[in-house]
Amino acid sequence: MKLEVYLDNSATTRQYNEVTELIADVSANKYGNPSSLHTKGIEAEKLAIKAREAIASTIGADPTEIYFTSGGTESNNLAIIGYLEANPRKGSHILTTKIEHPSVLEVYHHLETKGWRVDYIDVDENGIILLDQLEEKVCSETALISVMLVNNETGSIQPISDIVSIRNAKNPRTVIHVDAVQAYGKMEILPEKEGIDLMSISSHKIHGPKGVGALYVSKRIKISPLFYGGGQETLLRSGTENVPGIAGFGLAAEMIWEKREENYNKASLLKQLFIEKLSESGIVYSVNSRDDALPYIVNISFENVRAEVLLHHLEQKGIFVSTGSACSSNRKNKSHVLSAMNIPSRLIDGAVRFSFSGHTTQEEIILTVEALKDIIPIIDINRNRKIGRKQ
Amino acid sequence: MKLEVYLDNSATTRQYNEVTELIADVSANKYGNPSSLHTKGIEAEKLAIKAREAIASTIGADPTEIYFTSGGTESNNLAIIGYLEANPRKGSHILTTKIEHPSVLEVYHHLETKGWRVDYIDVDENGIILLDQLEEKVCSETALISVMLVNNETGSIQPISDIVSIRNAKNPRTVIHVDAVQAYGKMEILPEKEGIDLMSISSHKIHGPKGVGALYVSKRIKISPLFYGGGQETLLRSGTENVPGIAGFGLAAEMIWEKREENYNKASLLKQLFIEKLSESGIVYSVNSRDDALPYIVNISFENVRAEVLLHHLEQKGIFVSTGSACSSNRKNKSHVLSAMNIPSRLIDGAVRFSFSGHTTQEEIILTVEALKDIIPIIDINRNRKIGRKQ
Repeated sequence: MKLEVYLDNSATTRQYNEVTELIADVSANKYGNPSSLHTKGIEAEKLAIKAREAIASTIGADPTEIYFTSGGTESNNLAIIGYLEANPRKGSHILTTKIEHPSVLEVYHHLETKGWRVDYIDVDENGIILLDQLEEKVCSETALISVMLVNNETGSIQPISDIVSIRNAKNPRTVIHVDAVQAYGKMEILPEKEGIDLMSISSHKIHGPKGVGALYVSKRIKISPLFYGGGQETLLRSGTENVPGIAGFGLAAEMIWEKREENYNKASLLKQLFIEKLSESGIVYSVNSRDDALPYIVNISFENVRAEVLLHHLEQKGIFVSTGSACSSNRKNKSHVLSAMNIPSRLIDGAVRFSFSGHTTQEEIILTVEALKDIIPIIDINRNRKIGRKQ
Repeated sequence: MKLEVYLDNSATTRQYNEVTELIADVSANKYGNPSSLHTKGIEAEKLAIKAREAIASTIGADPTEIYFTSGGTESNNLAIIGYLEANPRKGSHILTTKIEHPSVLEVYHHLETKGWRVDYIDVDENGIILLDQLEEKVCSETALISVMLVNNETGSIQPISDIVSIRNAKNPRTVIHVDAVQAYGKMEILPEKEGIDLMSISSHKIHGPKGVGALYVSKRIKISPLFYGGGQETLLRSGTENVPGIAGFGLAAEMIWEKREENYNKASLLKQLFIEKLSESGIVYSVNSRDDALPYIVNISFENVRAEVLLHHLEQKGIFVSTGSACSSNRKNKSHVLSAMNIPSRLIDGAVRFSFSGHTTQEEIILTVEALKDIIPIIDINRNRKIGRKQ
């Protein structure tokens, strides 16, 4: 079998086998429409209830606060657009950061064209939101703040509790939405306890099926739907429920929740090993993911290397990585996250994201560094220069 | 094994085994994110391209005119809201019929609250749109007409070519959206040839996975997205593509397309047999689905019977039917479709929808009529009256 080292788990993950089996069983045998009044419908509805309860329990929420969607992008859109639509009198100003996922940033850009006043808060060189700037910007007109918990390109973790404190002090009516797509299943998040009002999660980032996500909506607040129809999901998300997908998401959530500490410790060791081996390798690099970032994501800039060229050389060896966010790969522009961190342009050009999962092994990390040692001298932009010397 | 006669195929269908196997294989082995630049991403992208081509070819469309969504409800919303958003100068008036699915009707109700002028065209006693009334209503301000091809409760088929002729004569700038969710895979529909601009289809109605649908958008027109984000589906539908689901939808479309004539003839015979056996049974009933309706759906009103009671007695015998649209089952009000057809209230109370698929057999139909003969005398509201006599 050909070697396959999959280090692009922030883009998407391999589905757990147990999840694949469950989805096949539900699709073949428990295929009823939850809206049907007969037992085949009820059987399907029960599967959705079970998944809702499983997910709610992982974030300390009530099952009635969980709404299934088609994925993280829809959850982010539903949270932001749905809240603003349902609460037109809470203010005309909205806030976010410069390092959000496109499914938040593009919503904000769209809302700007609709007359909303928008501020994009800067981050420091570690990719952490400037709290002073946030504090300055929150005002009586601020309806919503949307902040991602873990950045998808670098793994940087935003200080949600400080953001909540600023909100509480400056405008307690401002609602906080957290994009927890990269964080969920990898760290504990308790939205109600932490003062988060809306929170997006996605299934395919935690070894669940694609095409499924969820939005936590605190029972304290009301939001409007993006779609209209049969009134499923307590009127908030119409459309026949994707029961096999929802059941699969529920099982993946249970499985990853059980393994979260073991996986976290493993990812920490993998990150440490990776950087240790890199530092011994003679390769010239810099780490864009700081020590306190979520260890599953390691963003590295290689000097005098074009990341895309490196990516293709790595895939020749069966190693799969990303040059940044998968969701931005259609675009030609540079990473907006690394740019916001003031990383020099030449280092952004050489930035590669290695992202781990509970399936990643130490052997794979060692193999990857060996591969980098082989490839980098070949693709160095300045081949005449000596290799391995820090500039 | 317990008998299972599934006659609720208009609510949802049992997934083809081949589709279940394909989805499991893609989820386990070809799990890349199409936005990833490496071969695992490209492999996934190819699966989506193949499915897009397969579906396009079944409706005589170009693959670039097919946009994947999370299902029929999203497709209907995207078509209507997306067109009006992108074309604000095409008029302030929109038209539909009184017998649409909630995923169209509720969008229209929502748009009314946003200031759109809306007309809901009546239907005749056969559930067919009143063309005279439509002709009268189409005006220079009419931006869009949304009409379902096959009604989900009765199977009635709307005269799309007449509707297109009226549009062409009265206002060629008016765009036509067709909800083909119940029609697709069961009859030939060629939107471009027929003058349809937008057309919604759904996977789980054709033995494909739940959580997937598509929208045909004629290359002549532009629409806006409902969501914002990574810009997938040529900027029209952001969010990581549900590749296993899309691949499964493509395979289901190919399979049902191959069998469409065979299935259609089979459904016609099943409908004929069902009505023949019913007429011999002594049961008092009337057929709400006329002879020229799509034969997969047979809506029957039983005299002096409450449909929900009948449904539960049938399920005790392993026979699964619906009292109307599954998507409306959460609501207590009477079928809006049968009401629009001027069917008396007492017959609406006794209306049951039997919906077939290519898997339905003659034996199942005979068993169902036998079950009805057992049940109806027991649940007759006026048990004292003689059974089997037309009132």
